[in-house]
Amino acid sequence: MSKVIRNGTIVTADLTYRADVLIEGGKITAIGENLGGDTELDATGCYVMPGGIDPHTHLEMPFMGTYSTDDFESGTRAALSGGTTMVVDFALPSPQQGLLDALQMWDNKSGRAHCDYSYHMAITWWGQQVFDEMEEVVKRGITSFKHFMAYKGALMVNDDELFASFRRVGDLGGIALVHAENGDVVAELSARLLAEGNTGPEAHAYSRPPQVEGEATNRAIMVADMAGVPLYVVHVSCEDSHEAIRRARSQGKRVWGEPLIQHLTLDESEYFNKDWDHAARRVMSPPFRNRSHQDSLWAGLQSGSLSVVATDHCAFTTEQKRYGVGDFTRIPNGTGGLEDRMPMLWTHGVGTGRLTPNEFVAVTSTNIAKILNLYPKKGAVLVGADADLVVWDPQAEKTITAGSQQSAIDYNVFEGQKVRGLPRFTLTRGVVAVTEGKVDSREGHGEFVGREPRGTVNRALSQWKELTAPRPVERSGIPATGV
Amino acid sequence: MSKVIRNGTIVTADLTYRADVLIEGGKITAIGENLGGDTELDATGCYVMPGGIDPHTHLEMPFMGTYSTDDFESGTRAALSGGTTMVVDFALPSPQQGLLDALQMWDNKSGRAHCDYSYHMAITWWGQQVFDEMEEVVKRGITSFKHFMAYKGALMVNDDELFASFRRVGDLGGIALVHAENGDVVAELSARLLAEGNTGPEAHAYSRPPQVEGEATNRAIMVADMAGVPLYVVHVSCEDSHEAIRRARSQGKRVWGEPLIQHLTLDESEYFNKDWDHAARRVMSPPFRNRSHQDSLWAGLQSGSLSVVATDHCAFTTEQKRYGVGDFTRIPNGTGGLEDRMPMLWTHGVGTGRLTPNEFVAVTSTNIAKILNLYPKKGAVLVGADADLVVWDPQAEKTITAGSQQSAIDYNVFEGQKVRGLPRFTLTRGVVAVTEGKVDSREGHGEFVGREPRGTVNRALSQWKELTAPRPVERSGIPATGV
Amino acid sequence: MSKVIRNGTIVTADLTYRADVLIEGGKITAIGENLGGDTELDATGCYVMPGGIDPHTHLEMPFMGTYSTDDFESGTRAALSGGTTMVVDFALPSPQQGLLDALQMWDNKSGRAHCDYSYHMAITWWGQQVFDEMEEVVKRGITSFKHFMAYKGALMVNDDELFASFRRVGDLGGIALVHAENGDVVAELSARLLAEGNTGPEAHAYSRPPQVEGEATNRAIMVADMAGVPLYVVHVSCEDSHEAIRRARSQGKRVWGEPLIQHLTLDESEYFNKDWDHAARRVMSPPFRNRSHQDSLWAGLQSGSLSVVATDHCAFTTEQKRYGVGDFTRIPNGTGGLEDRMPMLWTHGVGTGRLTPNEFVAVTSTNIAKILNLYPKKGAVLVGADADLVVWDPQAEKTITAGSQQSAIDYNVFEGQKVRGLPRFTLTRGVVAVTEGKVDSREGHGEFVGREPRGTVNRALSQWKELTAPRPVERSGIPATGV
Amino acid sequence: MSKVIRNGTIVTADLTYRADVLIEGGKITAIGENLGGDTELDATGCYVMPGGIDPHTHLEMPFMGTYSTDDFESGTRAALSGGTTMVVDFALPSPQQGLLDALQMWDNKSGRAHCDYSYHMAITWWGQQVFDEMEEVVKRGITSFKHFMAYKGALMVNDDELFASFRRVGDLGGIALVHAENGDVVAELSARLLAEGNTGPEAHAYSRPPQVEGEATNRAIMVADMAGVPLYVVHVSCEDSHEAIRRARSQGKRVWGEPLIQHLTLDESEYFNKDWDHAARRVMSPPFRNRSHQDSLWAGLQSGSLSVVATDHCAFTTEQKRYGVGDFTRIPNGTGGLEDRMPMLWTHGVGTGRLTPNEFVAVTSTNIAKILNLYPKKGAVLVGADADLVVWDPQAEKTITAGSQQSAIDYNVFEGQKVRGLPRFTLTRGVVAVTEGKVDSREGHGEFVGREPRGTVNRALSQWKELTAPRPVERSGIPATGV
Repeated sequence: MSKVIRNGTIVTADLTYRADVLIEGGKITAIGENLGGDTELDATGCYVMPGGIDPHTHLEMPFMGTYSTDDFESGTRAALSGGTTMVVDFALPSPQQGLLDALQMWDNKSGRAHCDYSYHMAITWWGQQVFDEMEEVVKRGITSFKHFMAYKGALMVNDDELFASFRRVGDLGGIALVHAENGDVVAELSARLLAEGNTGPEAHAYSRPPQVEGEATNRAIMVADMAGVPLYVVHVSCEDSHEAIRRARSQGKRVWGEPLIQHLTLDESEYFNKDWDHAARRVMSPPFRNRSHQDSLWAGLQSGSLSVVATDHCAFTTEQKRYGVGDFTRIPNGTGGLEDRMPMLWTHGVGTGRLTPNEFVAVTSTNIAKILNLYPKKGAVLVGADADLVVWDPQAEKTITAGSQQSAIDYNVFEGQKVRGLPRFTLTRGVVAVTEGKVDSREGHGEFVGREPRGTVNRALSQWKELTAPRPVERSGIPATGV
Repeated sequence: MSKVIRNGTIVTADLTYRADVLIEGGKITAIGENLGGDTELDATGCYVMPGGIDPHTHLEMPFMGTYSTDDFESGTRAALSGGTTMVVDFALPSPQQGLLDALQMWDNKSGRAHCDYSYHMAITWWGQQVFDEMEEVVKRGITSFKHFMAYKGALMVNDDELFASFRRVGDLGGIALVHAENGDVVAELSARLLAEGNTGPEAHAYSRPPQVEGEATNRAIMVADMAGVPLYVVHVSCEDSHEAIRRARSQGKRVWGEPLIQHLTLDESEYFNKDWDHAARRVMSPPFRNRSHQDSLWAGLQSGSLSVVATDHCAFTTEQKRYGVGDFTRIPNGTGGLEDRMPMLWTHGVGTGRLTPNEFVAVTSTNIAKILNLYPKKGAVLVGADADLVVWDPQAEKTITAGSQQSAIDYNVFEGQKVRGLPRFTLTRGVVAVTEGKVDSREGHGEFVGREPRGTVNRALSQWKELTAPRPVERSGIPATGV
Repeated sequence: MSKVIRNGTIVTADLTYRADVLIEGGKITAIGENLGGDTELDATGCYVMPGGIDPHTHLEMPFMGTYSTDDFESGTRAALSGGTTMVVDFALPSPQQGLLDALQMWDNKSGRAHCDYSYHMAITWWGQQVFDEMEEVVKRGITSFKHFMAYKGALMVNDDELFASFRRVGDLGGIALVHAENGDVVAELSARLLAEGNTGPEAHAYSRPPQVEGEATNRAIMVADMAGVPLYVVHVSCEDSHEAIRRARSQGKRVWGEPLIQHLTLDESEYFNKDWDHAARRVMSPPFRNRSHQDSLWAGLQSGSLSVVATDHCAFTTEQKRYGVGDFTRIPNGTGGLEDRMPMLWTHGVGTGRLTPNEFVAVTSTNIAKILNLYPKKGAVLVGADADLVVWDPQAEKTITAGSQQSAIDYNVFEGQKVRGLPRFTLTRGVVAVTEGKVDSREGHGEFVGREPRGTVNRALSQWKELTAPRPVERSGIPATGV
Repeated sequence: MSKVIRNGTIVTADLTYRADVLIEGGKITAIGENLGGDTELDATGCYVMPGGIDPHTHLEMPFMGTYSTDDFESGTRAALSGGTTMVVDFALPSPQQGLLDALQMWDNKSGRAHCDYSYHMAITWWGQQVFDEMEEVVKRGITSFKHFMAYKGALMVNDDELFASFRRVGDLGGIALVHAENGDVVAELSARLLAEGNTGPEAHAYSRPPQVEGEATNRAIMVADMAGVPLYVVHVSCEDSHEAIRRARSQGKRVWGEPLIQHLTLDESEYFNKDWDHAARRVMSPPFRNRSHQDSLWAGLQSGSLSVVATDHCAFTTEQKRYGVGDFTRIPNGTGGLEDRMPMLWTHGVGTGRLTPNEFVAVTSTNIAKILNLYPKKGAVLVGADADLVVWDPQAEKTITAGSQQSAIDYNVFEGQKVRGLPRFTLTRGVVAVTEGKVDSREGHGEFVGREPRGTVNRALSQWKELTAPRPVERSGIPATGV
């Protein structure tokens, strides 16, 4: 059974052109004019783009004896609804838990996914077992390793662990990811704030100012450089962190930065809302920043110093958020965004002229597909690619509201935002999952997508590091030791 | 008659994969496995890449009553020999000469080209005629306009002309190009140097230090920003200029920078050579810089703050160079490079790990094709694209020497450099022009390539500028004027 | 007749200590404990500081057939009232007017001054007469030369004039000053705004955005570097300009920047006031900027990348401002500030902890005294120094209002601002001119203060430039010329 | 018994003027023309400057069971010989040793000093005892606390200790000092280098590249900002670290940087010397860097982004250095410099025009006196100041050689350097200790100099931090907790 998307304009990271797209067996089999198929989807007035890839989600993430409320079922359903056809979630080993064991747990959850998915593996502790299992993890197609520089006493690793892990990742041909905040300082600031009676959600923002993120980003970059591994910095929220990335890139270092749609469009004033729930629902790490940080992030997308827009989707209900009444450090960190990322970015990016449609595709899909070595299976409109596609109607409008969202939680941080630009159809491997706002996807349709290590950037970086490696000076007549 | 390139690995700005390429009618008509054709080119062990595009040449450029020695015939022959399949030359109106008139002169020269070509139009003076003719120039497919901020008394335009022209270019949907050096200061420094007895070729370098280029770049960026036009800075030779570009990009400005292969690989010590001829042959503007500037340029290519590697090919014989004996300001400015750009960049870029093969394609071909709105007719290995291709043998080696070059001049600034990575075949619109170093191309084969204005970047920038345009404050009760 | 200031705490740019100050013959003759004199001024609870120096005023400045309303009489009276004991005004030659001739005109005005004064000489055109007279100007003690890069068609000089003048200034051992805005672009933007119906005072701000100032600052720095002269940038209003200065300083260049008290404390929202008069009264060049630019300026004072706080006092009445009803380009540029600079800076600087009291003295008095080679005659509390002193009461408060100001105009841009920190006494060469807000100074008391050229910075810079000057390469066997 | 320095030119950080200096009881009691005294020192042709202060020495420092060879006797003798009249040494507690106990040990050593001295207290571990004793340390006049971010397993403290200590220092009104290198990464790189057979002294440089120093500096700045304490970064050796400091200062942060005379004048090529001893004698942390880092340091002194030139004098004999034959990590870290700092800086700074004589005084003496709240007792030529003076002969020349040095070691890292500019006399509290190269000083003459906490910068910073401290949002109707 074939399917053809007709009368649309294909928009990729590179190109804008009118053509039909033929889909067979879940893949694109032809692109051209006047194609026919068993089924036809009308894309008149629409852009046909690679489906979005969100490389940063936490679905059904364990937390204080419960879980983040959106799981692989509701989370990927929300993704498809908003035009995102793949997510990359984080497998998070508990302290002393083996990587393969954690992977098994994530495999157990992800079976319900409506769209394709992959994992990053988190390195939450260090030891011989971790070192050893990393190889097998890579063999299973998981080539990106996340490190938390925050969450002291829980997920955080310190600098020598970071260095050791980064070297291992580099040797295995993978890429290193970091959550960059100085966990020691966050812990101290948090304790001090609580001691001073700053217990509300706004204190969460006070406890992790931009400097703390900038510092950790800068540190991770140095460690990655010394270890010889490409680095990807998740949720870059501020100029401080972005500056560190720009500076590194301006020295030729292989570093990418990922802002979130939340930080691009929401600001810190949310935390000063008089409604505790309103403020607490926006608690995430890093917190929202002010307008000048937003300007920095947008400019980064325009210039290429930032590469990918993600969500860090980690959705907790209001009730879960209220765990932190009286103690902001107990408010579960995380917000939703999977359904809203693409419409919000289109509206505020393409709709204002800050981004071209091609750049939109790049930062929502193609760039991360390349970085993760998924391209062109994902992130492309090319013959042979997976038919993960979104037929985007640039005129369609809606007002975001929790009442009609796919996410399982009871609010939406973008509540009331008008967006212009929505999926007419979302296809996951050729199957139409969304039609004009109506979701008709299948639980369990999603498949795991593995990736190869040693992409071109890895190979080039290793070559350069080898070329410039320290060499001993040849000396004759070395004296006898003084001891 | 069809042709197939077999057994190669296709390398584009995006992708690396094994496939054969079928060529018919000068275009790529199929890409896939096991293709057949009337003729077969064996690409075993080779990369099949888009032919290079050199967007910066001066072929048969008028100078002091004579011309630069490489014309469209020898120049494009040299280009093909090195894997470059398209050049963009500068149509340079004389003072008060109309643009269309100048265009006619260039058309008269370019008929001998062996490969495809286009023009940038230079705005060397300003007036109603220029303003008016710019529209027709754009209609003829020439959408990029070059402005000289140096060469005072000859090509240089001043700031109000720059602003007026930039606005016109922006309104027409084109892009502005600048040669960025402060011409006033260069003139003063030159006069002073001569007065102090600094008459040799090294004084050429003294007369245009990096600061002078950095300043003009910074100025052009501001003017372009005020005028609302995308800017392309040619021959970025130094950190000063690159810093201005990086800073602009970090603010979201639409600015591209073009380093030359010469500045990437040669340094200012050339001017201190005791042999006058040796030094004078390297005289070009901007001059070669020191190693730290080179590092800056390479990092720019790695990070994307610089976009394109060109040559500014403008070849004068030793005899012509000697016009400047006793007065460095009379040494004709310019060096060759068309034949050597791709092998030199491969050797020093890909061969060291500073660039991936994909980045090599991007900066030698694809990026400029996109910037100039030539993509994917040029700069792509896609079905429907022109079959301007290079089959690149990464193991082939040679030592560069004037003795065996295509260029009509008697020396080569890269003399003695060993390169590794050379074309096995170069194809211009499907015709094999070069086979393992042997050039067998046809004079007059080259065709003019016109371009459409209002590319995606232009449209996005205009939208943003409109959105943020000044708005009057509504006031009632404005007082009567004081006069 | 001797006078002693008792019981105060001396605060200089360097030191804070308790001591009395003895004054005889207009000079400080002793500093120590328990000094006695014929008259005693009680400084209990107060700081005894060098009187302020405002290096940027335009008193009785010719404009469109009339003059700025504060002249040397009311202007210097206002200065003393606010603790400022010296002003440096700009002698502005008309087109083709000789420098000495202009100086004569300024001497005619300044005779009425209540406090000491000096001049900067403006270079508003270029020619042999100007070149020649500069030497005499320096001999008369005027060693600082101002250049306008804006006000096209009036005061503006272009780049070759700038370079020629800067070199002359450098050779004479003086320092170059610039008003840095790109006059060509301002003129074009202004014309366009008017053509589009943007005629109100807010369009003044639109016509000179920060980029335009940043560009010109960057250009002036390059020209000064090439010419080998120290540079002082007046009225640095924005990060763009400040960044250029910081960057230059980070390369060891001898550049100083001067923010105004207005830009430190007022912002662009003033221009959007619905009251035309309110907005027009704030029209000055550069215009007020937003908060992030303010933050930049304050940080510059803290770190030393900006050196001096001035006012650019140029006061026009509301009636004069109304010349520009219907055409913002005709609104006279300028605001007052002489009386308010020191209290406003103390309140917002020292009162917040952004500046130490010593830094306050540095940026209001001592730094400019050093830059202009006036130190320690002015700007110091040292034996032998002029007794230009302010006895500062850090607890005294008032609300600024035009109703009680010394300035001759009918409004005050700081109207309604509460300040804490005011002069208890202001002394000009030992004469008490102000006592707790009551001014009792003498018209004509002020004297011209000449300055020596070739300060230490000039000498060091010249030495470095000589050391690094271009040297010809020695060559034998230079070929015969090709022509 | 009075003493007068006649016919000299006084040069301070502020001023240059001719005057005689009268000294009585170890203090300056008069400055003026034609002073007389019991003894006269002829300063004809000389500058009379504040004696140098070296805030960074390690005299008789414990190391691997022995001590650095220059102790307070030979070290301060060397200091005086070169025009330095005060040193600040580091009291280094052993692990778990109390601060007061360590102080006692240092007091035992310092009794032999020829010139005045003070201490910085090192915080080498953290605990309640350290926290408690810090208050007493401050009471004893030691207000600066040093933290090592390197020397893992020995002196290094980690980030939470750093933060806790910085806060304590801030609360006590002191300043924080850091040795900024990432100790974790240095340890890993060192281990790797050894494992790869890189055992020679050059591997010491490989093990601590500029990035490692830049990172730690950036981190220390963030921690200090969060803790609200002024920060002083010792031995800034490279652009990476300097850039972090500049960036911090450009945001108004209170951070100072201290380059060493070694890094200003020697470069990394020393480590590639074929003579093991030559290379090992230059081993110090941070290591010498390349020329572009040197340029950065010089520019920092010119612009004020770096404040103080020190030596980190820590002198080991060749025999001691040879402990590290076969294992570079065992080479004792440190070089001499006390005797050479002032002549080397004068020669390469003032002698080239990079620094004015006043700037020389500022960076060798006055700035650190202000930072450490020693001014004007030290660092000044003012009535009441200690007569720690150097009569500097700008024409005197010598060639540095170990053969004639005061230091007790057998070599000099500046061996063979010609300097121009030497002390004619050095006076310590009025006593002539050096006369034209001949040292005649007294062991035990030196006295401890205590300092007051809460200098003006501390007070201003605390005020700003209080003003901008986090404030809780007032909320009614906070929900009940979800748990």
